Amino acid sequence: MPERTREEALLKVGVIGYGYWGPNLVRNFFEAEETTVGAVCDSRPERLALVKNRYPEIKVSQDPRELIADPDLDAIAVATPASTHYELGLSVLGSGKHLLMEKPLAATTEEGLRLIDRAAQAGLVLMVDHTFVYTGAVRKMKELVQSGELGDIFYYDSVRVNLGLFQPDIDVMWDLAVHDLSVMEYVLPASFKAVSATGMSHVPGQPEDVAYLTIFFEEDFIAHIHVNWLSPVKIRKTIIGGSKKMVVFDDLDPLEKIKVYDKGIEVANGDEKLHELLIGYRTGDMWAPKLDQTEALRRMVLHFRDCIQGNRCPDTDGKAGLSVLKVLEAASRSIKDRGRLVEL
Amino acid sequence: MPERTREEALLKVGVIGYGYWGPNLVRNFFEAEETTVGAVCDSRPERLALVKNRYPEIKVSQDPRELIADPDLDAIAVATPASTHYELGLSVLGSGKHLLMEKPLAATTEEGLRLIDRAAQAGLVLMVDHTFVYTGAVRKMKELVQSGELGDIFYYDSVRVNLGLFQPDIDVMWDLAVHDLSVMEYVLPASFKAVSATGMSHVPGQPEDVAYLTIFFEEDFIAHIHVNWLSPVKIRKTIIGGSKKMVVFDDLDPLEKIKVYDKGIEVANGDEKLHELLIGYRTGDMWAPKLDQTEALRRMVLHFRDCIQGNRCPDTDGKAGLSVLKVLEAASRSIKDRGRLVEL
Amino acid sequence: MPERTREEALLKVGVIGYGYWGPNLVRNFFEAEETTVGAVCDSRPERLALVKNRYPEIKVSQDPRELIADPDLDAIAVATPASTHYELGLSVLGSGKHLLMEKPLAATTEEGLRLIDRAAQAGLVLMVDHTFVYTGAVRKMKELVQSGELGDIFYYDSVRVNLGLFQPDIDVMWDLAVHDLSVMEYVLPASFKAVSATGMSHVPGQPEDVAYLTIFFEEDFIAHIHVNWLSPVKIRKTIIGGSKKMVVFDDLDPLEKIKVYDKGIEVANGDEKLHELLIGYRTGDMWAPKLDQTEALRRMVLHFRDCIQGNRCPDTDGKAGLSVLKVLEAASRSIKDRGRLVEL
Amino acid sequence: MPERTREEALLKVGVIGYGYWGPNLVRNFFEAEETTVGAVCDSRPERLALVKNRYPEIKVSQDPRELIADPDLDAIAVATPASTHYELGLSVLGSGKHLLMEKPLAATTEEGLRLIDRAAQAGLVLMVDHTFVYTGAVRKMKELVQSGELGDIFYYDSVRVNLGLFQPDIDVMWDLAVHDLSVMEYVLPASFKAVSATGMSHVPGQPEDVAYLTIFFEEDFIAHIHVNWLSPVKIRKTIIGGSKKMVVFDDLDPLEKIKVYDKGIEVANGDEKLHELLIGYRTGDMWAPKLDQTEALRRMVLHFRDCIQGNRCPDTDGKAGLSVLKVLEAASRSIKDRGRLVEL
Repeated sequence: MPERTREEALLKVGVIGYGYWGPNLVRNFFEAEETTVGAVCDSRPERLALVKNRYPEIKVSQDPRELIADPDLDAIAVATPASTHYELGLSVLGSGKHLLMEKPLAATTEEGLRLIDRAAQAGLVLMVDHTFVYTGAVRKMKELVQSGELGDIFYYDSVRVNLGLFQPDIDVMWDLAVHDLSVMEYVLPASFKAVSATGMSHVPGQPEDVAYLTIFFEEDFIAHIHVNWLSPVKIRKTIIGGSKKMVVFDDLDPLEKIKVYDKGIEVANGDEKLHELLIGYRTGDMWAPKLDQTEALRRMVLHFRDCIQGNRCPDTDGKAGLSVLKVLEAASRSIKDRGRLVEL
Repeated sequence: MPERTREEALLKVGVIGYGYWGPNLVRNFFEAEETTVGAVCDSRPERLALVKNRYPEIKVSQDPRELIADPDLDAIAVATPASTHYELGLSVLGSGKHLLMEKPLAATTEEGLRLIDRAAQAGLVLMVDHTFVYTGAVRKMKELVQSGELGDIFYYDSVRVNLGLFQPDIDVMWDLAVHDLSVMEYVLPASFKAVSATGMSHVPGQPEDVAYLTIFFEEDFIAHIHVNWLSPVKIRKTIIGGSKKMVVFDDLDPLEKIKVYDKGIEVANGDEKLHELLIGYRTGDMWAPKLDQTEALRRMVLHFRDCIQGNRCPDTDGKAGLSVLKVLEAASRSIKDRGRLVEL
Repeated sequence: MPERTREEALLKVGVIGYGYWGPNLVRNFFEAEETTVGAVCDSRPERLALVKNRYPEIKVSQDPRELIADPDLDAIAVATPASTHYELGLSVLGSGKHLLMEKPLAATTEEGLRLIDRAAQAGLVLMVDHTFVYTGAVRKMKELVQSGELGDIFYYDSVRVNLGLFQPDIDVMWDLAVHDLSVMEYVLPASFKAVSATGMSHVPGQPEDVAYLTIFFEEDFIAHIHVNWLSPVKIRKTIIGGSKKMVVFDDLDPLEKIKVYDKGIEVANGDEKLHELLIGYRTGDMWAPKLDQTEALRRMVLHFRDCIQGNRCPDTDGKAGLSVLKVLEAASRSIKDRGRLVEL
Repeated sequence: MPERTREEALLKVGVIGYGYWGPNLVRNFFEAEETTVGAVCDSRPERLALVKNRYPEIKVSQDPRELIADPDLDAIAVATPASTHYELGLSVLGSGKHLLMEKPLAATTEEGLRLIDRAAQAGLVLMVDHTFVYTGAVRKMKELVQSGELGDIFYYDSVRVNLGLFQPDIDVMWDLAVHDLSVMEYVLPASFKAVSATGMSHVPGQPEDVAYLTIFFEEDFIAHIHVNWLSPVKIRKTIIGGSKKMVVFDDLDPLEKIKVYDKGIEVANGDEKLHELLIGYRTGDMWAPKLDQTEALRRMVLHFRDCIQGNRCPDTDGKAGLSVLKVLEAASRSIKDRGRLVEL
C-alpha cells in the first residue's frame, strides 16, 4: 500500500463568521496537522484585522461568496447567526464543498430538511457543530449507556444555569438547552417524541431567560432540562439514572467530571399487598473514570476530516442537527402556551 | 398584673400516630417546658411499647376516640396517613380540642375546606405541620423577600432529590414537593395560580418517582420544583432570583445554608436597536448570615401553644395547608396529562 | 456441637465515668445483644439521675470501689480524666476484671507500662478505646495499606481543625492529635521513632490551641498532624501517599469518605544528567469504595467481648495505647522547645 | 499642566529568559499600554523562534549582554534559574537599568544583600516578582489585617499541595513555599524570626518533595506551610486566624476565593479556678467580598513602571525578597536536621 502523502490528506477549510465562536474553529483547523485554514470571512473589517494580525498567511474577505467560489477550499465552516444558516449552507453545498454548520443546523426544521437533502444529493458531508458530543466526558457517558452498564435508562436530568449573557435574538433554550439536546441525541438510545416547556422573561420585550423542558421519548423514560440566564451560581450538572447504575456529569469539577454510582433499586415480583417490602435499595462503590483530555473542538475537527476523506457519516450529522432543531421549535411553541404538550 | 403560673400556661397534647413522624412530635411536645404530652395513640401495640419504654408516665391507647374524649387534653396532634386526616380532624375539632395536623392537611381540598370551616366555627386553632417553615433558614428567606432586599422576585427554583423510600400510597410530589410548596407559600408574597407537572413512574404499578412542577403565580414570576426518589446523589437546593439580590439555600451545607448574592442584571431604557447593550451585569459581595439554630419542631410546638393561648392565627394555618393541597391535587391531574396546565 | 447459651456469652460491664463519653459507652454496651451494663459510677449525683431516668434497671453508685468489687461484673470501662486512669485501672485489674480504658491509656508512659504488665500477669484483657480504629473508613485504609494496593507508603498527612472546646487540663494535641496517632498506629506498618512539634497558645495561662507534629518512623516515610481549636472552618482530612496509589479520607463527606486515586510518579533509572526526564506522572481512575456502616463504638464493644471470650489480643491493646502515649509525651516536650526533635 | 505624552511614559523592557515564566512577563509588558518589550533573550534558539513567531517586532538575542548594553531599554526583567540571578542582576544594575528579578531574589542572602546595596547606590528600582502579592485576593487579605478587622493575628496556616513537577535543582520549599512566604511577608505586620522545617524526599538522589515549615515571628503568633509535590488532590488554602475574625483564602474556588468569618473566642478575665467557663465561642455571619479581577501580572507590571517613574519603593522590593530568601535558607538547614530551630 503506497503511503498516503500529507498533501493528499490535508483538508483546507474556509471559515465564515469570526465573532464569538469562529476564532475557536480557526484555531483548531489551523493547529491540527491534518487540516488547515485557507480563508476567513466576516463582514466587519475589525474582526478581519484580528485574523491578519494572528495568522498573517490566511486570506481574509468580507464577502462569503469569495470563499464559496474559491477552488482552493475543500470545505466551509459556517459560524454566523442562525438566520443566515440556510442560505449560506445551500450555497456552500451548491459549490461542491463539504459543510460544517454551527448549531443550530438552521432556523426552521423545513430549512434543515432541505440542507440535509441537498448534501445527500451532492454526496457531500454535512456536519453540525455539536461540540459537547466530542468531549471525553460525553463520550464516556455514551459508552456507559451503550454497553448496558447503566441498565435500563430511567431518566436524564440536566441543569445549565449561570448569570449569562442575554442574547437579543434567541431565548435561553436556543442558547443553552441546545447543548443538552445535542448530548441527549448522541448519548440516549431513543428518539424525541414530545416536549412540554415552561419559562418566563423578566426583561420587557426580551426572550425567555429561564426555561424548563420536559422531553418525552418513544421509550419508557423522560428527560428534563433547566436553563437559566439569571442564576447567581453556575451549575453544569447532568444525571442519568439507570436501573443498574447512575451517572453524574459535573462539568465544573476540574478532575472528576464523571462519577458512576453503583446505586439503584431492586424490585421483586411478589404479592401486591406486600409491595412496600419489595422495593429494595442497593448502594455500592462510586467510580470516577479517567477521561480523554483531548480538546473537544480538536476531536471534532479531525472527525470532520475523517468523515470527508473516508466518506463516512459524522456522529453529529444533519439528522442529529434536525432532531435537536425540532425539539427547540416545539419547545418554543409549548413555552408560549405554558407547558402544553407538543408532539414532534 | 398577677404572674401567670406555669400550670396555667402548660399545654397538654395528645398525639395520634406513632409511626415515622409521631415520635418527633412527642419528643418536642414532651421536652418543651411550656407543653407536655398526655397520651399517645397508635393501632400497633409494638409502637405503644416503645412509648411506654421511653416515657413511662405517658398514657397510651390503641383507640383515637379515647384521646379525643379525654378531658385532660387541650389539643391533639394527628400524624397518621393522609386518608385518615379528615375524619380524625373533624372528631378532634368536634370535641373542642385544638388541632395540629400533619401535612397534607387532608386528602382533598373539599375535606380541607370543611376542616377549616369547622375550626373557625368552633373558635379553635387549626395548624398544619409545615415543619420547614419553622427553620431558621426559611425564616431568613422570608425576611429577605419581605424586606425588599431581593428586589422584585424573578423566580423560585427548588431541587429535592435522593435515593428515597418508595411509598406505596403517595407519589414523589405528595412526599417531597409538599415541603417546597409549604416553603413557597410562606416565603413568597404571591398566590399560586396554575401548575404544569410532568413525571414518570419506573416501577410498574407504582406512583411517579420523578416529577417536575412549574407553578405560575398571579404576579410576574414562576416557580419550579424537581423531586426525585431515584437520584444517586442527595440535593436540597433552592434558589430565589430577585432583581436586586439572589439567595441560595443549600440545606445540606452544615454551616452556610443561606447565601445571599449581590448579583443581578441592570436594564437601561434606551434605543431598542441597542438593546443588546442595555442589559448589564452586576456582581458584588456574597454574604452568609448566621441563622437561628433552634430546632424547627421545637419552634413549631411553641408557636402552636402561643397561637392557642394568645388566640392568634398560626403561620401555617388551615388556609396555608389548603393552598398547598390545591397545588398537589392540580399537579396530580397535570402529570397524568403530561404537563397540561391546570388552573387553581 | 451444643448451642452456646446466651447467658454464657453475655458480657456484663460496669462503666466508671458518665460525663461526655461515658453515655456512649453505656448505650453501646446496653444495646448490643452480646453485652450488657450492670452498673454505672459517677461522682456527680445529677449524672447518675440521668442514668436512672434512661436505664431504670442499671445500678448506680458514686463510689468506683463498689463496681470494682462487684462480683456480678466481668469487666470495667473507665471513662474518667486521664489523671485517674492509672489508679482506677490498677484496681480494676487487681480485682480480676477485664479493662476497657478511655484514651489516653494513662497520664505517663511509666503508668501505661505498669498497667500493661499488670494485665499480662493477671491474664486479663486490657483494651484502649481508640474509637476511630473501629470505623469502616479506617479499616478500609488499613486494608488498602496492608494489601500492598498503595505500594510503598510515602507519607501520612492529617488535618483535624475546628472552633473547638478549650479544655482546661489538656492541650490540643492530647485532645485531637491522639485520634490521628491511634489511626496511624493501626494503619501504618511501622513504628514511631521521633517527633518534632510546634504550636502556640493564644489564651494566657492556657495550653496550646494550635499544634503541628511531624513524626518520623523507622521506615522511610514521615507523618504530619495539624490540630487546631481556633479554625473558622472544620476540616477532618487525611491523605496517605503511596508509590502506587493514594488515599484521601474526608470524614466530613457524608457519602464518599474514602477516595482511592490511581495517581503517582514513575521513576526510571537512567542517565543522571537526564534526571528531569525520568520522573513521570501517572493519573488514572478514582474509586470510592462502599464502607461498612456499623457504628464504630458498637464494633469496638463487640470486639472487646470477643477478645475476652476468645482470649485474644485487641486491635487496640495496651501496647497500641502506649505507643500513642509516648508520642504525645515526646510532642509535649518538643513543643516547649519549638520543634526540637525528641527521639522515642 | 502640560499633558504627559505617551512616549514619555512608555517603559521599554528587555526580558532575559523565555522558559516557563518569561512568556507571561513578555505578554504582560507587551499588552499593557504603558509598557512595551524591546528585546528578549534566551540561550535556546527554539525558544527565540517562538518569540519571533508571536511578536515579529521584538528583537531577540542569545546573549544577555546585548540586552544589558542596549541603550534603548529602560529596564530588564530576569526570568532565569536562581543560580544566575546574582551575576545577571549585578550587570543590569551596573548598566543603569532598573531590575525586575524573578523570585527568589538570589541564591543566597549574601548575594541578595549585595544586589540591594547596588540598586540603592545606583538609585535604581529593584523589584522582585512576588506575583501573588499582586492578586486581588492577597491585597484584600492585607487590607483586612491592616485595618484591624481581624483583631490580633493568632496564626497563619497555608497548604499548597498537588501532584507537581519535580524540579531537578530545587526542592519543594524553594518551588512552592516561596509563594506563601512572599504573601506572608506582604500581609503580616511582623518579621520572620526563626524556622523549624521537616520533610522528606521519596526519590533517591532528589530534593525534598514534601515539607512542613513552622515560622516563628517576633510577635505572638506562628505560621505554618505545608507544601507537597506528591498529593493526589490539589489544595491551595490559607487560613488567617484573628481574635475578632478569621479569613479563609481558597485559591481554587472560582468565585469566592476570600471568605471572612465572624467567628472567634471570647476570653473573660476572672477567677482562675473558673477558667473553663471563661472562654466563650462567638459565631456570626460569613462574608465573601468581591475581589478585583485584574490579572496579577498586569498589576505588577504597572506597579513596576509606576515605581520607576515615580521614584517609589515597590511593594515587593529587594528587602521583601531578602526576607523570603532568608527563611528559605534557614528552612533548608532546618530540614536537614529534622526540625531543629534555625534563628534568622
